[in-house]
Amino acid sequence: MSSGPSPHEHLSEEKLARAALTYLAEPGDPALGALLAICSPAEVLAAIKADMLPGTGPRCGDTPASRAALDRALGRWRARLPALPREERLADTSRDGIRLSCPGDADWPGALDQLGQARPYALWLRGHTDLRFACSRSVSMVGSRAATSYGGHVAGEIAADLGERGWTVVSGGAYGIDAAAHRGALAAEAVTIAVLACGVDYPYPAGHADLFAAIAGQGLVISEWPPGRYPARTRFLVRNRVIAALGCGTVIVEAGERSGALNTARHAATLGKPLMAVPGPVTSAQSAGCHRIIRDWGASCVTRAADIIELLSPLSVPDALAPGGGPGWPSRPDPDADRTPSRDDLDPDSARVIDALPARGGAGTSTIAVEAGVDLDTVLRCLGRLAGYGFIERCDRGWRLHRS
Amino acid sequence: MSSGPSPHEHLSEEKLARAALTYLAEPGDPALGALLAICSPAEVLAAIKADMLPGTGPRCGDTPASRAALDRALGRWRARLPALPREERLADTSRDGIRLSCPGDADWPGALDQLGQARPYALWLRGHTDLRFACSRSVSMVGSRAATSYGGHVAGEIAADLGERGWTVVSGGAYGIDAAAHRGALAAEAVTIAVLACGVDYPYPAGHADLFAAIAGQGLVISEWPPGRYPARTRFLVRNRVIAALGCGTVIVEAGERSGALNTARHAATLGKPLMAVPGPVTSAQSAGCHRIIRDWGASCVTRAADIIELLSPLSVPDALAPGGGPGWPSRPDPDADRTPSRDDLDPDSARVIDALPARGGAGTSTIAVEAGVDLDTVLRCLGRLAGYGFIERCDRGWRLHRS
Repeated sequence: MSSGPSPHEHLSEEKLARAALTYLAEPGDPALGALLAICSPAEVLAAIKADMLPGTGPRCGDTPASRAALDRALGRWRARLPALPREERLADTSRDGIRLSCPGDADWPGALDQLGQARPYALWLRGHTDLRFACSRSVSMVGSRAATSYGGHVAGEIAADLGERGWTVVSGGAYGIDAAAHRGALAAEAVTIAVLACGVDYPYPAGHADLFAAIAGQGLVISEWPPGRYPARTRFLVRNRVIAALGCGTVIVEAGERSGALNTARHAATLGKPLMAVPGPVTSAQSAGCHRIIRDWGASCVTRAADIIELLSPLSVPDALAPGGGPGWPSRPDPDADRTPSRDDLDPDSARVIDALPARGGAGTSTIAVEAGVDLDTVLRCLGRLAGYGFIERCDRGWRLHRS
Repeated sequence: MSSGPSPHEHLSEEKLARAALTYLAEPGDPALGALLAICSPAEVLAAIKADMLPGTGPRCGDTPASRAALDRALGRWRARLPALPREERLADTSRDGIRLSCPGDADWPGALDQLGQARPYALWLRGHTDLRFACSRSVSMVGSRAATSYGGHVAGEIAADLGERGWTVVSGGAYGIDAAAHRGALAAEAVTIAVLACGVDYPYPAGHADLFAAIAGQGLVISEWPPGRYPARTRFLVRNRVIAALGCGTVIVEAGERSGALNTARHAATLGKPLMAVPGPVTSAQSAGCHRIIRDWGASCVTRAADIIELLSPLSVPDALAPGGGPGWPSRPDPDADRTPSRDDLDPDSARVIDALPARGGAGTSTIAVEAGVDLDTVLRCLGRLAGYGFIERCDRGWRLHRS
């Protein structure tokens, strides 16, 4: 036996099983979601291999109908068993810089758990950024593939501005608005996340291979589908719920009346996340979907990054920063008011955190936590808040004071 | 003595007094509004001439402070007495095609009474259209004087479309959006109303003399200020409340952050009227005010005439026409649904009214009422509704079946 760690040691039995399930089942399969709500991933995988359903009986809520659905699902999953990579290869997720994040992992974003049984079985990640932290202050920005130059310009500008203020831009890696949003964030040297409807190593669209490499270098390319899996029409729609879930809110920049972006918008609304849209000329068909969701779905009309941050921030802004702090809060603050607080206005934790940053250079989150003497969750919250107000910014080493 | 009627017979004592008050006091003068709430116009005019305040005592709610304010007001009004036209000239309002409409007159729009003590003392009208009927289905459309070609195009298109569907467009006669709105309505051969901040015979802006003549020929040029009075900066702001009050709702098409159109918007909101705005490029400063009131004031985002009519119509649409007619009504109907009803769907009164229209040519409102056997108020309501659904349209003689 080798004295070094075997590849198997890289992944727990549960993570190995979840990796395998991403190969066998389509994401969002309601049968698998129902099974995973009552059985462990390893139990489900063993049952698929044994062609024998787990947990039959009352705890599955078995009915003849659900039983028949499970039988059909079992047939679908078993059909892919011959193509399932060997366990050694599944476990060696460090090849090609690709890794796996599973529910319960330190980097798993709790926001995904809002999806209930439609929660991803696991996510394949390409890039070195911490997914959970990146999503703690994030905006999903999607829109039409057939974007106009207006839409592309606006998406890029807003994404860059969000990035500069420490917000992660989540999008779908498609042509048009998605690409403009990613590129805007990249230009601001900010984190951006592309959620693909195919393997993270599958360059689709092919023209975006370089863009995906740049995103992986500075942020993350992620997918519910395993490496090598090709995209398909229905996969984009299934994928959209993950885009909506990963953002603290969703912004639509240009969408025709039948744009797929409106599917993402609907997921955001269903999840109870703030839904926003950027208006455009009423003479442009590419803005018709934006105007419709503002009019009929109650989406907020946003025109710049500050509008978006304002909509997403109220709950995270301490009373000391609330304008007036009166009974009107947390209703919409007056956008005309100058809301940038001075350092003297900061709540005690934020003040400790900003004091913990070195005068020159940057510091990592855990270093800051130790220095400030506050717990990690609080540090994360305060860092986001301070970045939102422009006191600090991201850097190679973590965070640094904003160079004004 | 002449055997013909004397000019005095044209106006009642009350109307004569109201005409005089428009010369003596600025519209919206709170002191005069308070006096008119408790004294007749003739009593007030007599008191001004006698330099003695009427109705002193508890019924005026007299306090030393209000007394002092009334004394100052009396001084202002008396200062204009020397320039008050002689009674004969006041009474002869038919000269120059100018006439007077006063509260209580058959053509006085009840909507103005919503202004309370800020209600106009009277309105000077130029044109032959019935003001009250014209305002029964009306949209106030205002916006920036420095309109872009986009804004002018959109305002004109929407106004023309509203006009074709039997809606009156109310605006302020200014350059830019106002002019585009009036011209769109004129092009559709529809009624449009220009509410001026100067005398209806005073061409301001001078370049709009021809436009005002065209509006008077097809609709109405109206003002709270008497003939000959010149415009002033504060008068535009005072005037705006009348524009807001005369429309069933107000639409803003292009407005900069400090546009006077937002003042009209605020009046509409204060009056509880539907407030709407047409979005535009977020890169255009002339649309910034529109986006702001959508975001912060809850203005509805509208992109075409149908959106506006839909927002203003629900309460006037009988259950038989309500989409679905289910518990969701009168919440916003689905704009994607084809909402045009067939003649079989009409409520009984509307069916009687449409049956009363001649197969060829047109008929006047009162003729239709007699023919249909329904009262005038109901006929007005049904005609508006039928025009809104495109069954009928205005013509020289009144109304006719829509030529499809």
